[in-house]
Amino acid sequence: MAKNDLILRALRREPVERTPVWLMRQAGRYLPEYRQTRAVAGSFMDLCRNDELACEVTMQPLARYELDAAILFSDILTIPDAMGLGLQFVEGEGPCFDRPVDTPAAIDALGVPDPEDELGYVMNAVRTISSTLDGRVPLIGFAGSPWTLAVYMVEGRATREFRKVKLLMNAEPEATARLLDTLARSVAVYLEAQIRAGAEIAMIFDTWGGVLGHRDYEKFSLKWMQQIVSHLKKSSPDVPVILFTKGGGQWLSEMADTGCDGLGIDWTTSLRDARVATKDRVALQGNLDPAVLHAPADRIDAEVKRVIEEFGEGPGHIFNLGHGIQTLTDPERVGLMVDAVRKYSART
Amino acid sequence: MAKNDLILRALRREPVERTPVWLMRQAGRYLPEYRQTRAVAGSFMDLCRNDELACEVTMQPLARYELDAAILFSDILTIPDAMGLGLQFVEGEGPCFDRPVDTPAAIDALGVPDPEDELGYVMNAVRTISSTLDGRVPLIGFAGSPWTLAVYMVEGRATREFRKVKLLMNAEPEATARLLDTLARSVAVYLEAQIRAGAEIAMIFDTWGGVLGHRDYEKFSLKWMQQIVSHLKKSSPDVPVILFTKGGGQWLSEMADTGCDGLGIDWTTSLRDARVATKDRVALQGNLDPAVLHAPADRIDAEVKRVIEEFGEGPGHIFNLGHGIQTLTDPERVGLMVDAVRKYSART
Repeated sequence: MAKNDLILRALRREPVERTPVWLMRQAGRYLPEYRQTRAVAGSFMDLCRNDELACEVTMQPLARYELDAAILFSDILTIPDAMGLGLQFVEGEGPCFDRPVDTPAAIDALGVPDPEDELGYVMNAVRTISSTLDGRVPLIGFAGSPWTLAVYMVEGRATREFRKVKLLMNAEPEATARLLDTLARSVAVYLEAQIRAGAEIAMIFDTWGGVLGHRDYEKFSLKWMQQIVSHLKKSSPDVPVILFTKGGGQWLSEMADTGCDGLGIDWTTSLRDARVATKDRVALQGNLDPAVLHAPADRIDAEVKRVIEEFGEGPGHIFNLGHGIQTLTDPERVGLMVDAVRKYSART
Repeated sequence: MAKNDLILRALRREPVERTPVWLMRQAGRYLPEYRQTRAVAGSFMDLCRNDELACEVTMQPLARYELDAAILFSDILTIPDAMGLGLQFVEGEGPCFDRPVDTPAAIDALGVPDPEDELGYVMNAVRTISSTLDGRVPLIGFAGSPWTLAVYMVEGRATREFRKVKLLMNAEPEATARLLDTLARSVAVYLEAQIRAGAEIAMIFDTWGGVLGHRDYEKFSLKWMQQIVSHLKKSSPDVPVILFTKGGGQWLSEMADTGCDGLGIDWTTSLRDARVATKDRVALQGNLDPAVLHAPADRIDAEVKRVIEEFGEGPGHIFNLGHGIQTLTDPERVGLMVDAVRKYSART
């Protein structure tokens, strides 16, 4: 049981002494100590595969800032990698796959990776981190959404037009559904295993849900996240689940209908509007624009205050950015942000 | 006066025999005849600067498809180019500027380009196209929104994080406001001149408004588009103005408040919801996902039908894509789309 359980209480919409805070990508390249560990580890995936070093970088932001959660250091693409697609991180280009999946035959050849076998290194990292944390703050486990994983798997590399994956979706809807089903089952057992290994919160990152049309979003992204939420609510009913669709501000009500406990909110939606849309059924996590962390100190302070005021009275707010922290962020500014959250939220 | 004035009537929300249709980037690289003309012209900007060739490519999609509007062949970055920033189109990278504007001093050195002098080549193109069209269909003139132009001018090249422009916005809000004011005045006289030269509709492309937080959107994007709409409503009250913020589905009501005549709607918002949000005060233009044009014929047909049905009964719909047509689109599929619009809309 976590000693600091603020985030767990906020996710249950129970009263808290102050708003809990953590940052998406809080362990990462903006920290010099991360860059040092990464240089020792080798490649990004080498770092993910080394449970001691993955634990070290997970703990680094907690040593610097008074954060209320740790998040497993890993990547959303571990599942397609375990499926045999050959994940590569090309400098300046982002992730790409040696063997993209773009035919029904390739889809039908995919299996559900065993979380304790092909993905055993992730579970080792969760266990090592969990034991090192020793209940100091809760550990967040995570995975990519089926749709988001499918985007990377079909396109093979970064895209702005999503031509291939939308072609597959339109030309081969049944095969696309089989791909998403395989991914949903893979994510479900993967998150279940992370929870067994010590994760106390499960978060699903739907980075690319926002590029879908409103109907396609329900059919190709939300439906499969729903399947995962339902699985986890059976396998581990007490573990809160957070869904985050970047650019999903128009679909918050439907997302809350999945039975999840919290929603990530990017910075294009005010938390006030998000509370109205979700009728206070779920906790809300967000929503400072990560670019604000490049601003002068007084602007960071004012923006933190605004986010907290827009959420308003009552429980259920977890302070966070609206997207991952940017690489060129000055670590000192992050400290200012965390301090400001403490300053302005000492009353909810 | 245009012989085919369907789009003008739709923008006034008057009854039409069928839904008018055009496509964002309808003249462009997906057409082999465009690629041929472009090869003759030299660079992209050489083509924009040659009024005969700009007219030729403007007319090309009208020769292939029964479209209800022509749009000036040009680029949103003509204004910053005329301000002396040195526009370059780097293959595979998109537009970039030799001299980005990222200090208050550089901002204060900017002037409003004379539309008939530095931008005279655009007005020549408008006059040549207008005379060639000879009223066949209305000609749409356009410009980028002040915020969108500012993004390119400050960043200097394509960005995914918008770090520099958001740093300027947060660290130097007064200088940013001066930049946006200079740009708003530049766009206003530029569109006014296009109208004088023969454009019958003015459209403002706010490609990057959707990356702003909800408050910042009003302050840094919408406010300046409002200023342009107010200017045009005085200088040419009968010319309809269309605003399009990509990713702006949450702000349609505020956009309609500007007094514009039409709103572009990307594919993440249903036209039904957009009508509710705007209380039928404006015409709506959109909103097929451009990626649907890669799909099999029956899917294109079904998606066109869905878009038209989602708009529903009553006037005020202009069929279009939710964003520009993609380069790898098969021109034959575009014909299927145009035919489907005629088939399903013969009743409004």
